[in-house]
Amino acid sequence: MPISAEQQKEIDAAREELRSTHRPTVDALERELHVAHTVLDHGFVRVIDYMGDDSAVVQAARVSYGRGTKRKSEDKALISYLMRHWHTTPFEMAEIKLHVKLPIFVARQWIRHRTASVNEYSARYSILDNEFYVPTAENLATQSITNRQGRGDVLPAAASQEVLELIKFESDRAYKNYTWMLNEDSNGEPDDPSRIGVARELARMNLTLNTYTQWYWKVNLHNLLNFLKLRADPHAQYEIRVYAEEILKLVELWVPLTYEAFLEYRLKGAHLSRTALEIVSRALVGEDTSSLKGKLTAREWTELLALFPALRRYDVT
Amino acid sequence: MPISAEQQKEIDAAREELRSTHRPTVDALERELHVAHTVLDHGFVRVIDYMGDDSAVVQAARVSYGRGTKRKSEDKALISYLMRHWHTTPFEMAEIKLHVKLPIFVARQWIRHRTASVNEYSARYSILDNEFYVPTAENLATQSITNRQGRGDVLPAAASQEVLELIKFESDRAYKNYTWMLNEDSNGEPDDPSRIGVARELARMNLTLNTYTQWYWKVNLHNLLNFLKLRADPHAQYEIRVYAEEILKLVELWVPLTYEAFLEYRLKGAHLSRTALEIVSRALVGEDTSSLKGKLTAREWTELLALFPALRRYDVT
Amino acid sequence: MPISAEQQKEIDAAREELRSTHRPTVDALERELHVAHTVLDHGFVRVIDYMGDDSAVVQAARVSYGRGTKRKSEDKALISYLMRHWHTTPFEMAEIKLHVKLPIFVARQWIRHRTASVNEYSARYSILDNEFYVPTAENLATQSITNRQGRGDVLPAAASQEVLELIKFESDRAYKNYTWMLNEDSNGEPDDPSRIGVARELARMNLTLNTYTQWYWKVNLHNLLNFLKLRADPHAQYEIRVYAEEILKLVELWVPLTYEAFLEYRLKGAHLSRTALEIVSRALVGEDTSSLKGKLTAREWTELLALFPALRRYDVT
Amino acid sequence: MPISAEQQKEIDAAREELRSTHRPTVDALERELHVAHTVLDHGFVRVIDYMGDDSAVVQAARVSYGRGTKRKSEDKALISYLMRHWHTTPFEMAEIKLHVKLPIFVARQWIRHRTASVNEYSARYSILDNEFYVPTAENLATQSITNRQGRGDVLPAAASQEVLELIKFESDRAYKNYTWMLNEDSNGEPDDPSRIGVARELARMNLTLNTYTQWYWKVNLHNLLNFLKLRADPHAQYEIRVYAEEILKLVELWVPLTYEAFLEYRLKGAHLSRTALEIVSRALVGEDTSSLKGKLTAREWTELLALFPALRRYDVT
Repeated sequence: MPISAEQQKEIDAAREELRSTHRPTVDALERELHVAHTVLDHGFVRVIDYMGDDSAVVQAARVSYGRGTKRKSEDKALISYLMRHWHTTPFEMAEIKLHVKLPIFVARQWIRHRTASVNEYSARYSILDNEFYVPTAENLATQSITNRQGRGDVLPAAASQEVLELIKFESDRAYKNYTWMLNEDSNGEPDDPSRIGVARELARMNLTLNTYTQWYWKVNLHNLLNFLKLRADPHAQYEIRVYAEEILKLVELWVPLTYEAFLEYRLKGAHLSRTALEIVSRALVGEDTSSLKGKLTAREWTELLALFPALRRYDVT
Repeated sequence: MPISAEQQKEIDAAREELRSTHRPTVDALERELHVAHTVLDHGFVRVIDYMGDDSAVVQAARVSYGRGTKRKSEDKALISYLMRHWHTTPFEMAEIKLHVKLPIFVARQWIRHRTASVNEYSARYSILDNEFYVPTAENLATQSITNRQGRGDVLPAAASQEVLELIKFESDRAYKNYTWMLNEDSNGEPDDPSRIGVARELARMNLTLNTYTQWYWKVNLHNLLNFLKLRADPHAQYEIRVYAEEILKLVELWVPLTYEAFLEYRLKGAHLSRTALEIVSRALVGEDTSSLKGKLTAREWTELLALFPALRRYDVT
Repeated sequence: MPISAEQQKEIDAAREELRSTHRPTVDALERELHVAHTVLDHGFVRVIDYMGDDSAVVQAARVSYGRGTKRKSEDKALISYLMRHWHTTPFEMAEIKLHVKLPIFVARQWIRHRTASVNEYSARYSILDNEFYVPTAENLATQSITNRQGRGDVLPAAASQEVLELIKFESDRAYKNYTWMLNEDSNGEPDDPSRIGVARELARMNLTLNTYTQWYWKVNLHNLLNFLKLRADPHAQYEIRVYAEEILKLVELWVPLTYEAFLEYRLKGAHLSRTALEIVSRALVGEDTSSLKGKLTAREWTELLALFPALRRYDVT
Repeated sequence: MPISAEQQKEIDAAREELRSTHRPTVDALERELHVAHTVLDHGFVRVIDYMGDDSAVVQAARVSYGRGTKRKSEDKALISYLMRHWHTTPFEMAEIKLHVKLPIFVARQWIRHRTASVNEYSARYSILDNEFYVPTAENLATQSITNRQGRGDVLPAAASQEVLELIKFESDRAYKNYTWMLNEDSNGEPDDPSRIGVARELARMNLTLNTYTQWYWKVNLHNLLNFLKLRADPHAQYEIRVYAEEILKLVELWVPLTYEAFLEYRLKGAHLSRTALEIVSRALVGEDTSSLKGKLTAREWTELLALFPALRRYDVT
């Protein structure tokens, strides 16, 4: 269970408070504020605070354009224009703060996005909870053969059963060793007064990488979209992708115009190389582009076919 | 006049709107939201939006400390502790967005603080207003003799009169040349149809550095305090310092506990070098520290005397 | 003349020194080290130092891939792969430091690239030289009609003559006023002992934006390529584009494999939106895509035609 | 053994190569280039590349000061001045690249320093080695009583023996489970053809936090000194502090003048709050400062006494 009764009480209290503000608000996101959205088996994402909305992006862009257009109806067009032309600074003008609970090996990928603010639960100060990630059977897969860093086929039931039991057993064992080393009860007194406990900063070293941690993560909309572009991508590891997908839903509630432009120009768009452009260009006038195929790697050609299946007609060896 | 009638109307409209939110709000800052605070002759600073308050800092710190202290009465102590021990990340959890109008030469100093988001009025897109900074007579000073980068004595009345007239006349002349080169009326039509105008991105090159520009500037509390530490300092150039001082007042309204800790541990505190520590340490037990004085430069010694005038007794040559 | 005799002497001295190192070196770039490459009328770009080469990128990527491939012949393929898949961190592992002399209005655009280190000549400490940018007649153009932020047609000779004379005269006048206000000779003594000079930080405010400044600019290869993508683009203002083009030549000497991949996948590639992908995809199988055209703005359609002229057949109104 | 025979061969090869350069070099650091300095039981730090030296700092500062001082003899004074007055940008002009092997729980602390470039060994692509950190008995301590995040007394021999055996046994067990789940031999073929292996990105989740990872870490001198200020501090966790101390020695070789100024003004200096300044100031003229003591927390007072033991005379309750 990702949320304890005590935490739920705090969330309910926060949701009950209602204040007045001269700042822009987003009703659809207000409804989700503080609420914990479950991710994986014990993780969650919840919005703690936000600043600005689609019109904050527009407003910032219009400072740049000075006495430029001002009609509200043009907001959508302006946001599309900004996204399409990589005018990224106006998207930095909106900000969001999330509370995330996630396995340590996911946190290690996540933290590589450097342009964000983070406060993580410290295992030097405090004792971690006995919560660790165990995949479901359908997410347990072999190493991919085509992609050196991904996963391939799902494991057969018998095999996955064996692995899952091992993960569960070993994570639990690691946690038991952790508490044995700490030798602390909930009041900070020794569990076993005949033994001397080990410092928290040391005892943690024997925990496994699927142990859950948590943090506050604050990021502007531009950097959040960069994160989502990489982590909501099908090539991202499943365990971080599910977080990205949950956040993507929150972005849709928060800044619907930006979300739409993001899908159109980023997530569902594609980048073509000089050679790919030339191949497509020639194919459009019916020229045989087989000679150009050799300038692409096998993988580039496969990816181009995925975008434009019609090019398969040139796919002769 | 820094604010046009049209701008004032927009500000009034923004101030009239009142919405409900589950987010933390700060009443003292809500009262200043959108209001333009005049700085210099035509500049201003106004708060457009903010995220978080003192308790956002505390909340983030407590995520780190896990099952740590939770009593509200301890917020002040925790914020002091964080400030004193340079635990800077919790202060990144609050954010503010300002709209600033400022002379270009001030903007050039300001922008060197890189960890902020900026959207500036673009003189490639739009035409700058005929507004330029002219110092008051009491702010017109000679080059400092003791400090290579500062100013010294105020100019005598006759001399300052002459300089101020020159600045006014030349700024106005530069603006006239700018509009002559542009040759655009307010509808974008040629003022003088017999002449061809010059592109905005080119015409601007002949404006002087005291021309006003404006931008949206969004920054987190930690980086804002860094900015204020440097720019609210007596050694900062007067023309940027007055902006810093105005912002400092807004910080006091926004996050009073953080403000207080900032004054105690940063603005009014001081850093002592290893040698300075040794000198003070010996002086406290009555030892003669004259021999150590030689390890300091003349300027270091002067600055140490400013902190501890009692050390003057060792100031024999 | 961008380089003074004294500066040239320093450059020659730096070029004469030759030292031994265990670090990677790039002969083609060593030949350009310290040399000033003229840009605009008085500006320059010169390489002061660099760290790493194409193989520094490869080496860093291979740390990530652990016991991965190690054959030298695969460097080119790996760099292409990294560029194509936006694996940007290995490109951060090479660094370059440039000394640039540039007009202030160009410096103001340039500095908006925040992830670089900068030390600029300070007009609070020192007196700026009497050097300002005056465009050539062929670079003097009207405001663009199609692009709100660009320039359009070149001015007729008579018109440009008039404008250029104005810029020259006024810049010179501004500099004379600057030195009059300063009232300092080359020894820091008053030029005119009967007058009191104005502090440098104040006098500078009356200089025009085409005055030259200079700085050291240090940036990693990844961020440099971002800068070049935006500033070597035909939509960039001419006066910054010429700097970007000069730097691009240096990048070609320094990291030829990265340069090639950058051209293929960035500079000469293009990003297609979801709708654009659909239009091209259908056109490739001979479907009429006229109905989809309405989902693009006029400008998007124009840009798509520029990439794929064959789509013009669907361009019926 | 931190370095394999194969790695040592590569290091020897890199050290044998000697090239010519027009760039500044630092002989003392050249001697250490590529050499692995052992840290902890299996970790190391080695310099892969560097850019600039003390005079790169000076050179950048002098661009700012324009026609400023140029005598070489003043380098030391200028660097001290910059350090003392927090003029940090010139220190960004030197850069260093390190190859570091370190336990994952140390890497998690280290990565929180965001302004650096990192390429880490990827356990999605590759298989981690069977190397994990086991503390020595003298580094195994209890939780500190005075400091919520530190360690206190060293464990008695019998107790530490028990803990160390547990850590060793469990880490080894975790690695065996990891390889069992992977089911890959050194050629990527199944170890046991009757079983299907698990993807690398999944199998790693059962490794313990003391497993070694490695990365390339590139950082400028300014940010490196920030890292060292925090991590070479006695309050830093021992396991990261030993890395910081090793790097500090390399900094001394690389930029001796900067190193000296860093010790004088940062590492061995101290920051005094407004109240602490007042207490010391009064004590210097013999005033009783007991009344001010109440404005400090108990911990602040303890720390002030540590700096100035003479103040103990006011330490009456």
